[in-house]
Amino acid sequence: MFSKILVANRGEVALRIMRAAKELGVKTVAVYSTEDADTYPVQYADEAVCIGPAQANKSYLVMPSIIAAAKNAGAEAIHPGYGFLAENADFARACVDNDLVFIGPAADCIERMGDKSMARETMKSCGVPTVPGSDGCIDTAAEAKAFADSVGYPVLIKATAGGGGKGMREVHDPADLEAQYQAARTEAGAAFGNDGVYLEKLVLRPRHVEVQVLADDFGNNLALCERDCSVQRRHQKLIEEAPSPALTEDLRRAMGVAAIKAVRAVNYKNAGTIEFLLDERGNFYFMEMNTRVQVEHPVTEQITGTDIIKEQLRIASGEPISCASRAPFVPFGHAMEFRINAEDPAHGFRPCPGTITKFEPPAGPGVRVESYVRTGSRISPYYDSLVAKLVVYGQDREEALARGRRALDEFVIEGIETTISFHRRVLDNAVFCAGDATTDFIETQMGDVL
Amino acid sequence: MFSKILVANRGEVALRIMRAAKELGVKTVAVYSTEDADTYPVQYADEAVCIGPAQANKSYLVMPSIIAAAKNAGAEAIHPGYGFLAENADFARACVDNDLVFIGPAADCIERMGDKSMARETMKSCGVPTVPGSDGCIDTAAEAKAFADSVGYPVLIKATAGGGGKGMREVHDPADLEAQYQAARTEAGAAFGNDGVYLEKLVLRPRHVEVQVLADDFGNNLALCERDCSVQRRHQKLIEEAPSPALTEDLRRAMGVAAIKAVRAVNYKNAGTIEFLLDERGNFYFMEMNTRVQVEHPVTEQITGTDIIKEQLRIASGEPISCASRAPFVPFGHAMEFRINAEDPAHGFRPCPGTITKFEPPAGPGVRVESYVRTGSRISPYYDSLVAKLVVYGQDREEALARGRRALDEFVIEGIETTISFHRRVLDNAVFCAGDATTDFIETQMGDVL
Repeated sequence: MFSKILVANRGEVALRIMRAAKELGVKTVAVYSTEDADTYPVQYADEAVCIGPAQANKSYLVMPSIIAAAKNAGAEAIHPGYGFLAENADFARACVDNDLVFIGPAADCIERMGDKSMARETMKSCGVPTVPGSDGCIDTAAEAKAFADSVGYPVLIKATAGGGGKGMREVHDPADLEAQYQAARTEAGAAFGNDGVYLEKLVLRPRHVEVQVLADDFGNNLALCERDCSVQRRHQKLIEEAPSPALTEDLRRAMGVAAIKAVRAVNYKNAGTIEFLLDERGNFYFMEMNTRVQVEHPVTEQITGTDIIKEQLRIASGEPISCASRAPFVPFGHAMEFRINAEDPAHGFRPCPGTITKFEPPAGPGVRVESYVRTGSRISPYYDSLVAKLVVYGQDREEALARGRRALDEFVIEGIETTISFHRRVLDNAVFCAGDATTDFIETQMGDVL
Repeated sequence: MFSKILVANRGEVALRIMRAAKELGVKTVAVYSTEDADTYPVQYADEAVCIGPAQANKSYLVMPSIIAAAKNAGAEAIHPGYGFLAENADFARACVDNDLVFIGPAADCIERMGDKSMARETMKSCGVPTVPGSDGCIDTAAEAKAFADSVGYPVLIKATAGGGGKGMREVHDPADLEAQYQAARTEAGAAFGNDGVYLEKLVLRPRHVEVQVLADDFGNNLALCERDCSVQRRHQKLIEEAPSPALTEDLRRAMGVAAIKAVRAVNYKNAGTIEFLLDERGNFYFMEMNTRVQVEHPVTEQITGTDIIKEQLRIASGEPISCASRAPFVPFGHAMEFRINAEDPAHGFRPCPGTITKFEPPAGPGVRVESYVRTGSRISPYYDSLVAKLVVYGQDREEALARGRRALDEFVIEGIETTISFHRRVLDNAVFCAGDATTDFIETQMGDVL
């Protein structure tokens, strides 16, 4: 195991990684922007290094500063968390070039899976089902039209370098295709510096179901059950749960097998997530692979009794996965995660940075809170608006729902607007409570918040 | 299920019961002394009734006030928690006489198990192993001496109405017997209004291992694995864990079978705990049954995925146990509970009531906190000194230990002395970490705090 690692992130995920490291006896080095100097993760780390001003592109995204901080502190490895540099192959490569272990997959895996159309091709070639789609990027509106005509509308235009909904467009009417195609390219170019887009048949009323995988150097390739992340607003996940209310044991096994095929196809090592669309008939299609830990990893930890961050450290340091002997995993109970963001659900989820004048998280049975704030903390306007993740678990979905209601009612955050009230409303929605939410849940059931 | 219950207790257990009730959609009525008027459980309840001044014998122990509060509020049942009236058969009977359900076993079960020598006889007659002991109470010092001579020293003198170490004396030297016998009777008489004592052979270096049981009206009699509570100071538990590091699967099954025999023998319904002494050779002996929920129930909940308080409500309301289909239970991971008391371990654990100027509990993976305080709360000198229970869990004992260290290091309580530092030291003790603690752990390993 490493003796010291650097955590190249901020907020709740930085603290989550430091806690895992501490439990393994690994020292931690925090890096922080001047904006984050007073945050709890910076205090929690064994050492902390300021790497620049508030703007991420002058601090958390500056690879040489982070590499230098790691080398100066004598860290042996860097955990990138999620976001920022987590899926940046150049950063993974820079770590290796500087004799640092990147706690994540090899750079070429990030590249192969990060290029969405290449990832699709890889999956097709190893027998993982994909949504009928264009072979590679589509370079003209006419080509896009021809493809859409061949598979039938609706279709989805997606940025090949994309993620987070940027450069993504649904087209239901042939008359809209050209305009949307151009808009997607423009948006993709601005967001990712790469305006390549491809087309897919749009699966109607699908669920977003993803499989957590872990793979090590000892031949362990494990599927840790699935998460259902169908409750999304503009392709941003808001609520995640495990297991998926839609899966049978057979379907769980089939999706796990497909996920492991994907892992083997690219010789993937470390933690990753294979995202699938699941249609009403139980057909599932590869969407993309996230080559990092996900925000929603705790729901998987609760139902499998694992610690995914610790397993990442074990794998990266050359140890075997510690939970391998317990595979194949059978869900133990049911867990849900609610992302508590500093956003105002009454006003289009607009960000509400500011100072938290009171922070009293819920507690008691079946409640886990992942956060980095306390009373007096400030939510910065410079970064994403995640304040806390409320994770609840129980012996079955009904108990998880009841605990979610109870815990959200107990949760006190004053001084800023948050999404607590939104989540509380979802837990009174009959479609969600029945386990029937698909990815159009927000627009069809909670349309007033769009 | 009930629509409204009264919680006849205070502090963390009152809040624990209210949380369970809330998750079941059951309204709660709090009762409180003037001393507790500003506490969180009083705010948390749907209704609250003041039942008297600070002294428990003028408030929490006054049965007519509590019964009247329940009737006036329209509650259908009373949960007694632990301590106070929880094992008072007269109170259970008074509830029934007033058309209120007592959330616990029938009054005659409390009586049969509450009289320690009668309980012993009952266990012997149904084939549950007991420590060689006197048949019933011993009325003279000469009789005590004759018994001790027959089974050999050391012997243990115990109060028949006892609990919590009151009226209990170890005798290693025959010369001490008479004095200790008289002292035990005097102490028992003062503590319980009943000076009856009995004698047992003292099992040397035993572990305290107890089996959690649940029994309902539908024939479900379940053993929910065991807890190891060997870390005790003057017969007060300080740390509890589940499963016991000393048990094999065979021994777990055998102790579960014995516990269920005990439950059947007295036609016990609701939650209860059968406490055993376990010697180094794997022999176990019935000590006593606690006819109520235990302080340490959360460790069992974590490794079995159950909610014992909710099951108590289900059983008492005439519903079947909800987790019955998952029996026989196999421990899922490992859990430990640390009792954080307002006591000063550097000065003989003397109580340290006062105002908490800062309360920042730990969080993150594998951490559950059961408390009722927050920054600004006052710990009253009138009641027991429990401030919070820190429960940690992980995939195995090693992970639970690491999380315990990490969580205790994170735990900030300012303004009063607490036992956090004591627990942290235990987690660095080689005997405890090896899972080898027996009931003499504190005196042999942590003697400086005695």
